[in-house]
This record gives sequence, structure tokens and C-alpha cells, in this order.
Amino acid sequence: MSRSVPYQTLQAFVARVYERLGVPADHAQTAAEIAVAADLRGVDSHGVEMLPRKADYIRKGLINPKAGIKIERETPATALVNGDNGLGEPVSKQAMAWCIEKARAAGAGFIAVHDSNHYGIAGYYTMMALEHDMIGISMTNTTPITVPTFGRKAMLGTNPISVAAPTGASHPFVLDMATSIVPSGRMAVFRNLGKSIPAGWAIDSEAHAMNDPGEVTKMLYSRTGGGLLPLGGEGEEFGGHKGYGLTLVVDILSGVLSGAAFGPFVYPQKDGRPAPGNVGHFFGALAIEAFRPLAAFRQSMDELLGALKDAPKAPGHERIYIHGEKEFETEAARRRAGIPLHDQVVTNLMGLARDIGVEFDL
Amino acid sequence: MSRSVPYQTLQAFVARVYERLGVPADHAQTAAEIAVAADLRGVDSHGVEMLPRKADYIRKGLINPKAGIKIERETPATALVNGDNGLGEPVSKQAMAWCIEKARAAGAGFIAVHDSNHYGIAGYYTMMALEHDMIGISMTNTTPITVPTFGRKAMLGTNPISVAAPTGASHPFVLDMATSIVPSGRMAVFRNLGKSIPAGWAIDSEAHAMNDPGEVTKMLYSRTGGGLLPLGGEGEEFGGHKGYGLTLVVDILSGVLSGAAFGPFVYPQKDGRPAPGNVGHFFGALAIEAFRPLAAFRQSMDELLGALKDAPKAPGHERIYIHGEKEFETEAARRRAGIPLHDQVVTNLMGLARDIGVEFDL
Repeated sequence: MSRSVPYQTLQAFVARVYERLGVPADHAQTAAEIAVAADLRGVDSHGVEMLPRKADYIRKGLINPKAGIKIERETPATALVNGDNGLGEPVSKQAMAWCIEKARAAGAGFIAVHDSNHYGIAGYYTMMALEHDMIGISMTNTTPITVPTFGRKAMLGTNPISVAAPTGASHPFVLDMATSIVPSGRMAVFRNLGKSIPAGWAIDSEAHAMNDPGEVTKMLYSRTGGGLLPLGGEGEEFGGHKGYGLTLVVDILSGVLSGAAFGPFVYPQKDGRPAPGNVGHFFGALAIEAFRPLAAFRQSMDELLGALKDAPKAPGHERIYIHGEKEFETEAARRRAGIPLHDQVVTNLMGLARDIGVEFDL
Repeated sequence: MSRSVPYQTLQAFVARVYERLGVPADHAQTAAEIAVAADLRGVDSHGVEMLPRKADYIRKGLINPKAGIKIERETPATALVNGDNGLGEPVSKQAMAWCIEKARAAGAGFIAVHDSNHYGIAGYYTMMALEHDMIGISMTNTTPITVPTFGRKAMLGTNPISVAAPTGASHPFVLDMATSIVPSGRMAVFRNLGKSIPAGWAIDSEAHAMNDPGEVTKMLYSRTGGGLLPLGGEGEEFGGHKGYGLTLVVDILSGVLSGAAFGPFVYPQKDGRPAPGNVGHFFGALAIEAFRPLAAFRQSMDELLGALKDAPKAPGHERIYIHGEKEFETEAARRRAGIPLHDQVVTNLMGLARDIGVEFDL
């Protein structure tokens, strides 16, 4: 069961919640906009569904609502930014804006962020670059729930990577992917459908395949061992070591290079209780005109993506997708018809509104 | 059957071949060094095994032995480089050196190269960054032999990505991976062992799984349809669309951004004959000190990689590997004991030496 809510209504509600929790209006607006961007694009696990958890972190003093954003080191093409343990969205939007500014002046801009928190969908930030005729890059480390190849304990995050590039006539290219075989949010999807997950997505603490999405979620939260497998699956036969390697690359750039937490130390627990996450992010922008005339780039993109879409299809398939395409279609539909919210999500949001005393109008 | 050859002897032979074919001494040395680096690290498919094919391209006028390397556009942090249809190795080494120079001055350096050819192992260039206390990035597009998700015809290359990062006490981190589920060279390995390949690596032109590595190789060269599957395999269930997306990212940065060929247009055929490849590459360097004190970075890397190595192992496994580790061990062994060359490779190299009139001493 679900209801549909206009995205503007939802966004105003999220902003209201954050403001009530002490987040300044501009940061509250940014965090609300990025949460709703996830819901608009169909990435429901990263949208308002996360709000109660984020609110809880603020209320427990684990996220600083009044975080200041500071550049700590800077060169013409790079910077290191301190997120002051605030919400991940405002510092990330600011960091990406600085990348774009640097890329305009120096051709490229790359910024690492430490002392941050969950930043929503990686693709929000890369899409910011599109409006400036740039290629955008975004990645973040996350709670450690992914098992390394030949291991049986989660040591790394689902560490997503996003890359976006402008096109001419077609939708922009927007890759936004967890480097684990599936994101953790996929468990909830399968649980809601009452379905088992395929063998090969997750293993328990003894490295046995798991089928029950509810059990997997419980295990991931408990951090007692086991976890999701990296892209490429178990072992090396189908390239699991490559997915594991990509997960590590994201952690090296987001966590190690920024001076944030990394690997098993992200979102640490102290005496069995959660402590501040010290999440790290990494952003980049490349100015296309620094390499090639923009019109030529756009035309080549259309030729490449067009050739892919026109390629012969496998039996049973009528369409070859470009990354981001499904999400742009979902977004168009949801802008018109509203964002579908599961009853459980509505209940959770209603409870949150009551607890902190803000108007509930969803 | 194979013999072992000291790497210095092998490198001198390769350089001699290139010089005999009209490549200037410094470029011949570079190409030889990078070929032998592949053999030293155990990536035999990218070492001297490729020499007869590269020599053939030069002799047929498809690769320009006397290529000039030119910067065509430049900003403080970026450049566009024209490879003048020369060997991929010299222009790539030069481009990476310029990335490092730019990163020293501006924090980051990124360079796209067009009109190049096969550049050997991606990891050679990223490892150049290590000596300068930088993170290195390298990628290239390649002959189109990978099928997009829901397709049944090869449209994209195996498009490798390499990222290298320095450490403290442990081996550096060096990821070097094809974004296809396996590199094409894996077929030869299985054929030499007389083994079938697992279902899920390659499909034929009707999208049926293939088992015979020889048949796969024949199909890939004929470019009649079918191909390797992207990392994550067929369809979307195990993330094949992610591997396909990464392959596209490499092509966008290497091919589209540089103005090289891309997708199905790399190494085109004209009237059934091969034409110049117009391969594109993309390189990057990030100066660690632009973000964080080097000693702190090294220490964090050791902590992260140490935690991974110490993590509980899956049953039947005694070791969790860090990317590059196996290759560093192979390199140490081969520096001592020589590089093993299969009889077929020796025969091919002997034939080449005779054809062009250089001394054969392997």
C-alpha cells in the first residue's frame, strides 16, 4: 500500500524537519532537495525513507546540525574540505560547486571531504556538472557491509561511484552504482515483495549463501560477520576481485586521501553504541572544453549512445539502456504523478513529525 | 613447453625489433620496457606475445613508427595529446609524465590522448605516479569485443582501468582490471590448458553461452557478433549493467573526451581490412600532499590494507589479497628466474626476427 505525494510537498516537509532539528535554512533546503531527488529518480532507499534515521542521528548528537564547512588545504585544482560532522548533503553540494569552479579555471577540480555523513545519491553531485558542460565524478565510502574476496566478514562499504557526462539530443549519461553486487536497499525491495534473494548476493559469517533478505538486513546492521559480495560475486571466477578492487579505490580516494574513516572504521561503534560516522567523499569535475570543443563532444556522445541503443538485442529484450535513462523516465513520471510512499515510510515520517513537533501534511 | 629468458635479454630484443622497424631509439626503449613490464608482472597476454602483431601493424603502415607527440590543448591541470598514430606506449608514458608534472604544480593533472594504439598494461602508467607520491589513474579503450547488457553484439572494448596508490610498509595498491568479466587473453590461457571456459564469460551472436575458448577467440577476431560479457555478467541480476557502465565510462573519458574513436569504431575495418586504430587513453595524477600529509596517508593505507589481510577468511582460503600483490610476487620471481616464454611465442618471435632481419638470442 502506498500513497502519492507531490515532490514539492515532500521536499518542504523534509526541510521543515531539518530546520526543527536546528539545521540552518539553507542546509535544510539542500538536504531536502537531495533526498527528494533520490525519490524522484526512483532510488527510494536513499530518499525520505532515510529521514528518520538521519533525524535520529542529529537528535542523539551524532550529526552536528550546525556544521561549518571549511577548506583546509587548497591548490588550483584540488582541495581538502572538513565537513564538521554535519549532514553529508550540504558539504557535498558545496564541494562539488568548488570542483566546478576549479575546473572552470584550471580544467579540472578534485575535492576530498572528511568528517561527513551519508550524502544521499552519488548521482546528484555528478549531475551538477552537466549544467556547466563538465563531466562529474562522485564517490563516497559507507558503513562496512561488503566482504572482500576470499573473506567472510564485511570490511568495506557498498562504496558507490557516479560519473555523469553531457550528451546532445539524448538523456545525459549518469552512472550511479554501488560497487557491491547490489546496494543494501535491494534487501528491503525483495522483503517487501516477499521474495528470496538470489544465491550470490550475500554470505553469512561462515561464508554460506543467504536467501532471506530480512536475515541479510539484520546481519548487516548487527555487524557480526558476513555481508554483501562485491560486484563480480564470490571468488575470482567471475571477477569478484575486480568489484572488491573498485570498492577499495573508492575508499582510498574518499576515506584515506581525505583523512576520514575508512574500511571497517566508518560509522564505528563505541561500547556497542554508534559514534559519529566520519564518512569521506571524493568529487571531481572535468571541463570538456579543456579537452575538446563542446559541440563535437556532444555529437560523439550521441553517436556512441545511439550505436549502443541500435545494437542487436538479446532474445527476450527489446531495449538496450544507457545509464540514467530509466531514472530520467521515472523522474518525469513522478514529477507529474507524485512520489509513491509506502505506508511504512508514511508511518515512520508521521511518527517523526509528532516526536519533534512539526506539521505533517503528506 | 616453455623456456626462461632473462628480462634484460627480452627487453633488448624487443627494442631491437622496434628500432629495425623505424621506431626512434628512445621510443623503442620505452615500448620494450613496457612490454617486458607486462611479462614481469605475469600479464603474459600484454607482453612480448603482442610484439608480432604490433610489428605487423607497423609494417603494414597501420602504426606510424616515427610518430610525433603533440600537446594540442592545455590548461594548468589538463591537456589533450595527439599520438600521431604511433605506438601506444611512448605517448602514454609521456602523457603520464605530464600528468605528474601538472599534479606537482596544480594538485591534479589529467590528460586525454587520441590517435594512439594499444598501450600495453594500464598499470605501468599508474605505477609511475607512485615514485612521485601520487595516486595514478590510467584507462584506455580497445578493440570492441564486449557486449552491452541486453545486447548480443560486441560494441565496446574490454576497456581496462588502473588505479595505483602508495602505501607505507606493504606493496603499493595497484588495481589493473578489464571492465569486461575477463580480458580476452584469458581465452588463450584456457585454450593452452585444454579447458572449457565457464558459462557466463562469453555469448555468441544469438546470445547463447559459449564454452570453447578457441571458438570465442575466433569469434572476437571476426567481429561477426557475440562477445565477452561485462563485469557482473549477463543481464542485471548480478550487476552486469554496472560492468557495462564502467566500460562506457572508460570509453567516454578515453575515446569521446579525447576525440579518438570510441565504441564499435575503435580499430575499424575498411573494406574488410584493418585501418589505423585511433585508440584513446586517459591518464590522471593526484598529488597526495595536496590533500593530506604523505606520512599520514601511508599509515592509513597500511591500516586499511592490514585490516583486510587480517580479516577472517572464507573456508578453503588462507589469504585475502590486495590488488597488485600477486603481480609484485610474480615480478620478484621472474626478475630472478627469467620470464617463461611459451614455445609458440618463441616460434612467433623467431619468425619475426628472421622476417625483418634482427638477431634472435632468446
